[in-house]
Order: sequence, then structure tokens, then C-alpha cells
Amino acid sequence: MSAKFEGDRPKSLLKLGTATLIGASAAVLISGPALAEVDPEVAYIFNTLLFLIGGFLVMLMAAGFAMLEAGLVRTKHTAAICLKNIGLYSIAGVMYYVIGYQLMYNLTDTGLTSDYFGVPGLWAGSEAAGGEGVNLEDGYASSSDWFFQMVFVATAASIVSGAIAERVKLISFFIFVAVLTAFIYPIGGAWQWGEGWLYQMGFSDFAGSTIVHSVGGWAALAGCLLVGPRMGRYVDGRAVDLPGSSLPLATLGTFLLWFGWFGFNGASQLAMGSAADASDIARIFANTNMAAAGGVVTTIILTKIWARKVNLGLALNGALAGLVAITAEPLQPAIWQAILIGGVGAVIATGGLFLLVRLGIDDVVGAIPVHLFAGIFGTMIVPWTNSETSYLVQAIGVASFGGFAFVSSFIVWLALRNSIGIRMSREDEEVGGDLTELGHEAYPEFVPGNGRALA
Amino acid sequence: MSAKFEGDRPKSLLKLGTATLIGASAAVLISGPALAEVDPEVAYIFNTLLFLIGGFLVMLMAAGFAMLEAGLVRTKHTAAICLKNIGLYSIAGVMYYVIGYQLMYNLTDTGLTSDYFGVPGLWAGSEAAGGEGVNLEDGYASSSDWFFQMVFVATAASIVSGAIAERVKLISFFIFVAVLTAFIYPIGGAWQWGEGWLYQMGFSDFAGSTIVHSVGGWAALAGCLLVGPRMGRYVDGRAVDLPGSSLPLATLGTFLLWFGWFGFNGASQLAMGSAADASDIARIFANTNMAAAGGVVTTIILTKIWARKVNLGLALNGALAGLVAITAEPLQPAIWQAILIGGVGAVIATGGLFLLVRLGIDDVVGAIPVHLFAGIFGTMIVPWTNSETSYLVQAIGVASFGGFAFVSSFIVWLALRNSIGIRMSREDEEVGGDLTELGHEAYPEFVPGNGRALA
Amino acid sequence: MSAKFEGDRPKSLLKLGTATLIGASAAVLISGPALAEVDPEVAYIFNTLLFLIGGFLVMLMAAGFAMLEAGLVRTKHTAAICLKNIGLYSIAGVMYYVIGYQLMYNLTDTGLTSDYFGVPGLWAGSEAAGGEGVNLEDGYASSSDWFFQMVFVATAASIVSGAIAERVKLISFFIFVAVLTAFIYPIGGAWQWGEGWLYQMGFSDFAGSTIVHSVGGWAALAGCLLVGPRMGRYVDGRAVDLPGSSLPLATLGTFLLWFGWFGFNGASQLAMGSAADASDIARIFANTNMAAAGGVVTTIILTKIWARKVNLGLALNGALAGLVAITAEPLQPAIWQAILIGGVGAVIATGGLFLLVRLGIDDVVGAIPVHLFAGIFGTMIVPWTNSETSYLVQAIGVASFGGFAFVSSFIVWLALRNSIGIRMSREDEEVGGDLTELGHEAYPEFVPGNGRALA
Repeated sequence: MSAKFEGDRPKSLLKLGTATLIGASAAVLISGPALAEVDPEVAYIFNTLLFLIGGFLVMLMAAGFAMLEAGLVRTKHTAAICLKNIGLYSIAGVMYYVIGYQLMYNLTDTGLTSDYFGVPGLWAGSEAAGGEGVNLEDGYASSSDWFFQMVFVATAASIVSGAIAERVKLISFFIFVAVLTAFIYPIGGAWQWGEGWLYQMGFSDFAGSTIVHSVGGWAALAGCLLVGPRMGRYVDGRAVDLPGSSLPLATLGTFLLWFGWFGFNGASQLAMGSAADASDIARIFANTNMAAAGGVVTTIILTKIWARKVNLGLALNGALAGLVAITAEPLQPAIWQAILIGGVGAVIATGGLFLLVRLGIDDVVGAIPVHLFAGIFGTMIVPWTNSETSYLVQAIGVASFGGFAFVSSFIVWLALRNSIGIRMSREDEEVGGDLTELGHEAYPEFVPGNGRALA
Repeated sequence: MSAKFEGDRPKSLLKLGTATLIGASAAVLISGPALAEVDPEVAYIFNTLLFLIGGFLVMLMAAGFAMLEAGLVRTKHTAAICLKNIGLYSIAGVMYYVIGYQLMYNLTDTGLTSDYFGVPGLWAGSEAAGGEGVNLEDGYASSSDWFFQMVFVATAASIVSGAIAERVKLISFFIFVAVLTAFIYPIGGAWQWGEGWLYQMGFSDFAGSTIVHSVGGWAALAGCLLVGPRMGRYVDGRAVDLPGSSLPLATLGTFLLWFGWFGFNGASQLAMGSAADASDIARIFANTNMAAAGGVVTTIILTKIWARKVNLGLALNGALAGLVAITAEPLQPAIWQAILIGGVGAVIATGGLFLLVRLGIDDVVGAIPVHLFAGIFGTMIVPWTNSETSYLVQAIGVASFGGFAFVSSFIVWLALRNSIGIRMSREDEEVGGDLTELGHEAYPEFVPGNGRALA
Repeated sequence: MSAKFEGDRPKSLLKLGTATLIGASAAVLISGPALAEVDPEVAYIFNTLLFLIGGFLVMLMAAGFAMLEAGLVRTKHTAAICLKNIGLYSIAGVMYYVIGYQLMYNLTDTGLTSDYFGVPGLWAGSEAAGGEGVNLEDGYASSSDWFFQMVFVATAASIVSGAIAERVKLISFFIFVAVLTAFIYPIGGAWQWGEGWLYQMGFSDFAGSTIVHSVGGWAALAGCLLVGPRMGRYVDGRAVDLPGSSLPLATLGTFLLWFGWFGFNGASQLAMGSAADASDIARIFANTNMAAAGGVVTTIILTKIWARKVNLGLALNGALAGLVAITAEPLQPAIWQAILIGGVGAVIATGGLFLLVRLGIDDVVGAIPVHLFAGIFGTMIVPWTNSETSYLVQAIGVASFGGFAFVSSFIVWLALRNSIGIRMSREDEEVGGDLTELGHEAYPEFVPGNGRALA
């Protein structure tokens, strides 16, 4: 409502007409030729296009997560993790359509006004085909916004699959994803992006370090605690390395995530219908890239000094931690600040990996350090570069999302454990999820002994 | 000519100036600020940009097909299928430039006016460099349209390579691709997108469930019938599973296809120079995604109930079948209808796989069920959501394309079989196409026994 | 400053306001409705958007190089090459920010005016967040331009990693990358894109066949000469084939590079704020694609006739050589000329591979033939299609860049060799860079004997 929240994504601001609003506020600031405000229809097209480009970029992050996780699990669980990834992306879309979107954004459109969640229900906001429903005052096509929001919820779900890979039951995982994307993520989202209580308090999380990444991380942590570590991961109190099967695929996945992140952060500007918005998006692209670069360079230097060897997996996670860390505020930092934020995010994620091992938690791909720890850091560092935010409010937001996401996820995992179970049998885990849950192998010709246990 | 065909891609409509036309018709419908029609030059840029973005997205589908097929063939044929994919994409572009494009679209520009095919020849429509040839009345840059059309013809060719993998001779395959992309696809395309007889009759196939996907599927079917099943695929009347070598690559391929499909369907709107068009594209994006999601979710539920296990390959094909099914009409359905169309498409493709096995046809990647069967379904279901189309005309279109594509493909395959041959020798097939046709292996270090037969 | 250099990327032209300038010059040429020049703010958004789309496409080329190289090295060096690729992309961005960008473009903004290099220093050109720094006369957001320039420097560095893979020391490679991206590439870039002496002379290199690709190629050649061939590559004067480990990954990498090249060449138009620019970009897309296609088709025909077998690796390099060759002038050629340029580029690259073997140089992925030889050809052939350029000036440019890039790279490699060393120990090379430099394998389950040497 005040300029304070510019860059955040309250829905009503947009409904007031982004182009008009931002065009007006920018008019004072933009120098050069006399400013004729961008034609509302042209702004509408630009805004819609931003959501569509951002949406397809974020969609490809589903492929990024799939490849990252396929590369970091062992061969006998690889097909299963691929299925989980394409399955979760699909389930997330359906559940968000059926329930989640309205729960997240429909806070004020009914009599049941709430600051905590909207009225759940089928998303019905699509303008009619053929242009009958086009209202230029909306500022963008409702379907484009929905599409963009939908790919975000899938991201949150993707974070969970990697952490609890190699031992969670397929069907239980999918049920958890359905609950996460229908209820947990949307309710949290309502607090901020739905203009709920945290938004009103002044919490700031530009593209979702907390709302998306740490929520996914908390859900993953709850899952890890209840499903327990993989067989053979901790033997006599010592951690045993169970190396991932294909680091090139993990590298590909990381690059695809980095690529998609330009959409994730850039299109979270939510408008491209003015020169000011376009400039902001450009800043966001540069900062997003440099935070990731900072994460990689920091990890390489750190591990070279510390361990004499440079671990590829840590470098990949360093890139991702840098990306997560900058996500809460990719607009305000100068480039050097973005590099620094990314670098510190990577240090935190790297340290977090060792902390988890200490605690006996088994996170197969390092999703919790990357998405939860770096996400918390990114959210807490916002006031360093954005003077209109407060450390206290950021902390309240981080804690509120953490408490809600962790407790609700824990309850769902617990309910699943006490009903259909969440853990594969010891025999199935030994043989691998591919043969036991899917009935086929990921690489039938490559690892001859893989199917042995069944023979 | 009438509003009936809006959303389809008749060339003359565009030549009349898409922006003007649609802007005008939309003027009545659009609410909000007084509508000043979008400046023709701005609309020209938007329209051109749509083709370019759509084009590069569809181009990446070539990588998607390559990875899908590389993951679903056996290691001894993997390099060969990679070569076929990059080769077919290249040949398709060249042949479409040399002959195909004019055959498809040059129906009315000469004295030899026809409703069945254009005058073949070198595409010469590119505006001059430096802007000398720019005509705002065209509504878009001719090169951008050509680029977008060109990547479509490659898609049709990609469908064939997977079905007849592991036994077709490389050189014969490439010759078939040249004929398909120079003649078969363009002639079919002329009937509808070139404003030929089917277009005039009212056939509707938005982005090509029939024109692209089922044409590719019919060509693949003709190839499968004449080239015969792989050695060892059917033994004593029973089908033997010959599992694909790398399911992560197949998963990656599916995600890349899904990603590219936003361009395939979205840019088939052919214009982005008005708010109405932008809104339609946004609807198309949402529906395209949800049809694929519907396909995946349906397949997972179906196979879990039916077989107790969830086959990853079937889930991937479910996504693709959902995408093919929605392609004929991605604009009109509501989201729930898109999910349903995708789901039914997936059921048909899954059932179709088993039907092919019954019939003793060997389609290595399931291209025929996905692209042909789901493509027919998608085309036939158009009238459910688009009241201006007719089931009868849709059936005529499906049958006409089917008859023409199947018969002409069959003749070409037959001619190749009776001349240079289309089938590798038994020895070569046993050893694998990689060593015999390319002279090297795809994974020389991974599968030690692979080169055995040559030793 | 004259129309002669249109299509090149002098910075001052843009600072004069691309939209205005090009709009004005195009006004005479464009037919159709009365031309109202595109609103400067709309042009600003389009120009910025072009840089952002081009930038994210080129960014994905980093993934393309990573996959290409991961597929073409042996398994025991695969994780190391992945690390090098993500590391070099990150280092390139940081060094370009810290020193390179100003060195390349800051030639005239200070008292130290020079035609040879700018004043090095931290890039400080980003407009302030929130639009305070937006100046419509710039024509585009400075961050978008910086982002686009930054991904280019990473491309130059990517070329080096593949050529000298499997034996260069990790740390020395990273130091070389830092020098290349901070100094060598930017100084060369200043000569042309910074409007230095070659630009003033009339040299033409649209998107960087010479400035990017051959500079990377010269740096790679210097590295190859000083680091020497891999152990076992040349035995008793005969070349021993050391086949790459995963051709599907190499194929994927090639497709990703092809995909990214649309941004590389297309966005080098530097403006999309007029119909003339949009049309030029469309031409560039079409030509870029068809040069690559020409490269593939030519290689397939050539190798089929010559060797009876069609080598996949050669076909992939044919695509890349076609892309490199068209990069110096992707706008002026007609399609048939683009196909021809790509085809000849591919022949040169294929021949160049054999030349290198003759000379006893070991270029693991064929980067020198593809990026250096085809890059020289592409630059020298510009006057064939662009009558405003001269063969003599092109030759001067090629030679100047060659001399500078080769000599300076040679000195850096030499200094590294004589200090910390650039070559892995024989034992480390035998075991592989993965275990010795990273401490883990790329495919721990796949190649059982891989870790043998350590056991």
C-alpha cells in the first residue's frame, strides 16, 4: 500500500493497475524525453509477457531439480527420483488449481475476509478465450499470473524430494506433496503475497527465500526427521559417504536451476510495463547471476584452502545457496553486495551440510542447508540493502513461516507414518526404489549387479 | 475469413494485418481505459518477438526428442539416435527452405492457385537486412514466421526417429526425412495452415495435433510396418521387454519437450500485439501445462491401481500424450477441461502402447500412441470446448491427413526398401548401429561387453 | 558513427539513443501505415528485454559447454571438467565486474582517453533500484547491457576448458581464466566493441566470431602448446583415439549451445525498439539456425562419402563450426548464403581437426578448429555478403586479435608453468582429475575399475 512494499507482490497493488501506478511514481524519477506514460494496453502486454517468460523459465527448474537429484542419488533409486520429480510438478499444479491458489490469494474477495488464508476453491480467474474477459485495469492477463504462481508452488515441492530420497515411499511422498501444495505453501503465501498479516506488518521477501525456499526446506527437514536416515548412512555413529551416481547430471541440473532463477527472481518484479520496471528487472538479473557466481567462487576457494580438494557437489550447492540467499532481495543490492550475499549464503550452506551430519540427519542432496539455511540468511540480510525493512520484522517472518511450515509438515508426515507408512521396507531399500516401486531400472545395461538382489 | 477460424493460422489473415484485425474485433470486448489501438509498429515488434520466442522454445524440442530417444534405446544404438536427431533437425530446415515452405504457403501468390498445395521453391520471403523490406502491414517480420514454421516441420520428423530406432538404416532414414519435410508435411500443411481445402471447410487444429503430431505418427507407423520389429522384440509370439538405457535422459527429454511446448502452442496464437492476444497466449500456457500435468497424474494413478507399480516411461509418455491432446485446441478449454483432455489423452496413449504390442508392431519409444493416437483424440475433442467446430469436419480432417500421410509415407518407405533397403543387416543390428553405422560407441567406458560382437 | 557500422555494437551509438537513431533512419524505408516513431519508453523496454532474453540464452551456453565437454572427456576427468565449467562461468562474471567491463568500454569517459583499452575498475553503471537512475536517452537499462556483455566473456573462457581438458591443473586453469576475463578478452573487446582503433578502421564482427570465439581459440591453442598432449594420445608418432565417455551428453551440449546462440547472435543486434530492428533480429535467427544446419548436413555428407561412416562427434562439431562461422555476420546473408557459410565452416573445422593431429596438438573436444579456424573463416567471409566491409580490414582485425590473444595467453600460460605449474603429475593424470583434484568420481557406480589406480 505504501511505496515501502514496492517490489513485493501484493495482489491488490496489481489490481489497481501496476502500469499506471508505477508509471506515475516513476514519472518523477525518470529523466530524458518528456515522459508520455506507456499506453495501458502495451503495458498489459509487457506485464503478461513477463509472467509468461518468467513462468517458462521457472518451469524448467523442475527439470533442473530432477537432474540435480537424479545425479545425486544412487543408480538403484534414480528412476524413482525422476518419477517423483515429474509427478510432484504435476500434482502441485493440479492441487494449486483445485485448492491452493484461492487459499493463497482469495483473502479479500469474499465476506470471509481473513488475514491468514483465503477461501479455498477452484481457481476461476482466467479471462475468457478470445479476449472477452480482458480488462486493461488488471494490468496483466490473470492466466499469466496464475501460471507464474503455479510454477512457484512446484518449486517448493521439488525441494522436499531430494532431501528424503532413496527411502521414502513413493505414494506417501506424493500425498505429502498434495497437502503441501494445496494447503501448507498457500497458507504461508497468503500471509505475505496474499497481503495477509505479515505483509501488513512490513515483512519483505521479494521472490521467496522464505515463502518458497525455506518452506520447502522446513517440509524437507520434518520429512528427514520422521523418515530417518538411509540404511548404511550412519554406521557406528560415523557418517558413510554414499556418493551420487552421475555428477554431470547434477551439474546440468544446477545450470538449469540457475537459468530458471532469472525467471524466478526477475519476473517477481511483477511488471515490465515501464522503463523503471524494466530497469529493475535488469538489476535483478545481474544480481541473481552474481550471487550465484559469488557462491561458486567462495565455495571453490574455501574448500581448496580447507580440504586441498575442490568438491564439485559443494560447488554446485554453493551456486544454489547463492541463488537462494539473493532471492529475498535481488533488487536493492549493488553487484558487490550480491556477490557477498551469495558467498556468505554458500558458506552457510556448506557449514550446514556438516551440521546436519553432526546431528545425524540424512539429507541426500543438501536441500536443507541450501534452501532452508541460506533462505533464512537471505531473508535476514534484507535490511542491509533495503533500508525500508526491519531486522525484527524479518525475524518474525522467518520464525512464523518456520514454525508453521515445520509443525504442519511434521503433523502430515506423522499422520502418514502412522497410517500407510512413509518408509520403504528394508528389503525394498536395499534393492532400490527403482525395481521395487517402479519395476524397472534407470540404467539397466550399466550396472550389471544392480538387479542382483532380486535374482 | 470469418471469426470462426480465429486462433487457427491462416496466412492471409495475418497478411491483412493481425494487429489491426484483432485489435478491432477486440475493441468491443475489452473493458477498462478507453482503448487506443496498439501502435502498428509496436504490435509488429510484439508479433515478431512472439515468433522468435516460440521458435527458440520449439527448437529446444529437438534436444528434448534427442534425449528422450537416447534414453529409451539401448546403449549400442544411442550414438546413432543422437546423430539421427541432430541430422533430421538440420535436414528438415534445409528441405523446408528449399522446397517445403512454398509448397505449404504459396497457394495463392501465383497463377497456379490451388487448394491442395502451393508452388514449390526456394523460400524468398525474408525482408532485406537493415529494414528496407519492412512492411508494417505484414504485422510481423517474415523471417520470424519462417523460423517458427521451420521448427515445426522438424518436430514432425523427430516423431519418426524414435519409433523406428535400433534397426532402420541411417541413410534411408535421412532420405525419408528429406521427403517428409520437403513434400509430405508441407502438402498436408497447405490444406489447413496454407488455407487450402480443409481450412475452407472449417477444420480446426490450433497448433497441430493432427497437422504435425499425427502426420509424424502416421509416417512412423508406415515405417514400423515396413521395417519390422527389432530382433528379439517378439519371440514365439510374446513381447520381450528391451529396456531403454538411461531413464534420467528420457526424463530430461520429456521436460525439455514440455518446456518447448509453451512455444509450440503459445506462439501458434500468431500474434501478441494486443491485450486480447496476450491474454489468449496466457490461457494457452496454463492449459498446455495442465494438460500435461493431467496426463502425468492420470498415468500414475492408473498404473498404481492396475499394476501396483508406477512405470516411469509410461508417466513420461503420459505427459507427452497430454501435451499432444491439448495441442489441437489449447485456447478454449477451461483448466479443468484441459486437465481432463490431458488425462484422457494419456489413457489412450497408454492403452495404445498395449494395442501396438498386441499387433506385433515395435515402436521403441511409444511415439505412435503418443503422437498419433493422442493426436487424433485431441483433434476430435475440439468441438467439446470450441462450439464453432464440428465433429464431422474434424473427422474428415483426421481421416484426410491420416490417409495422405500414411499412404505417401508407406510409398516412400516401400520405394526405399526396394532400392537401397531400410533395414540394417542382422549382424549390424546385433552389434548395434553405433559401431556399424558411426564407427564408435556412445558410452565406450561404461558397458564393457558392448563392442564384444566385433572382437 | 556512419551507417557502415550498423549491426556492430559501438557503445556510443547506443548512448545516442538506439531507438531514436534507428527509428529515424528506418523511417524512409518502412512502408505501410504512417510511421509514428515508437515511444521512447516502449523502445527502452524492448531494448532491455532483448538484452535480458539474449543474456539468459547465452548463459545457458555455459551448460552447453559443460555437457559437451563432460561428454567428450573420459570418465575419470568428467567431474573435474564439470567443476571447471561452473567455476569459469563464475570467475568470468566476477573478474569482468571487478576489472574487465570498464577496461573494455570505459575508453572515452575519462581523461585517459585511449583507442586501445579503457580505464579498468569496478563496473559502476547500474541504474539505481526503483527507477531513480533510469534515463530514457540511454535507450536501455545499463544492467541489461552489462548482463549481456558478461555472459559473452564467459563464453570465451568456456572455449579454453575443453581443449586442454584431462591434464591441466585445476588451480592454474582458474588463474588463467581470471586473467583472460579480466584483461585479455576485455582489451581485445575494447578495440572493436569499445569503439577502439579497429572499430574506427571499419572492422566488422557482428557478434564475435573473432572477438569472442577466435580469442578463446587462440587462448586454447597457447594452452595446448604449453601444457602438451595427454599421456597416451600420441604413441610412436601415431595418434591414439581416446573416445569421449558420453556422446548423449555431448549431443545435449551441442543442442544447448545452438539454442543459446539465438541469444548470442540475435541480441547482438542490440536493439529491438523498432520494426526494422525486430526484422533484423528475425533474419539473424533464421540465418543462425541455417548455418548450423548447413554445418551438420555438410559434415554428414562429407564423412559418409569419405569414411563410409558418419561420426557423431564430427557432426556435432559441424553444427558448432557453422554457428561460429555465421557469427561474424548473421544479418546480411540470404538463407542460402548462411547455409553455405555454415557448411564451409564445418569443412574447415573438420579438416582442422586432422591438421591438429598432424601437428601433434591435442585438443580434446576440437575447440580450436571449431572456434578459431571457423571463427577466422567467418570473419574473413563477411565482405562477401556485407559490401561495406573490406577483406583487408577484416584480415587486419583477425591478425591483430590473433597476435594479441595468442601472445598474451602464451605469456600467461608460460608464467603459470614456470611458477605453480600447469600440468598434473603423471600419476594424477593416470588416476584422473576427478579423484586427484576433487577427491571423488563422476560416476562412482558405473566404471568399477576407475578408482583402481588408487587402491
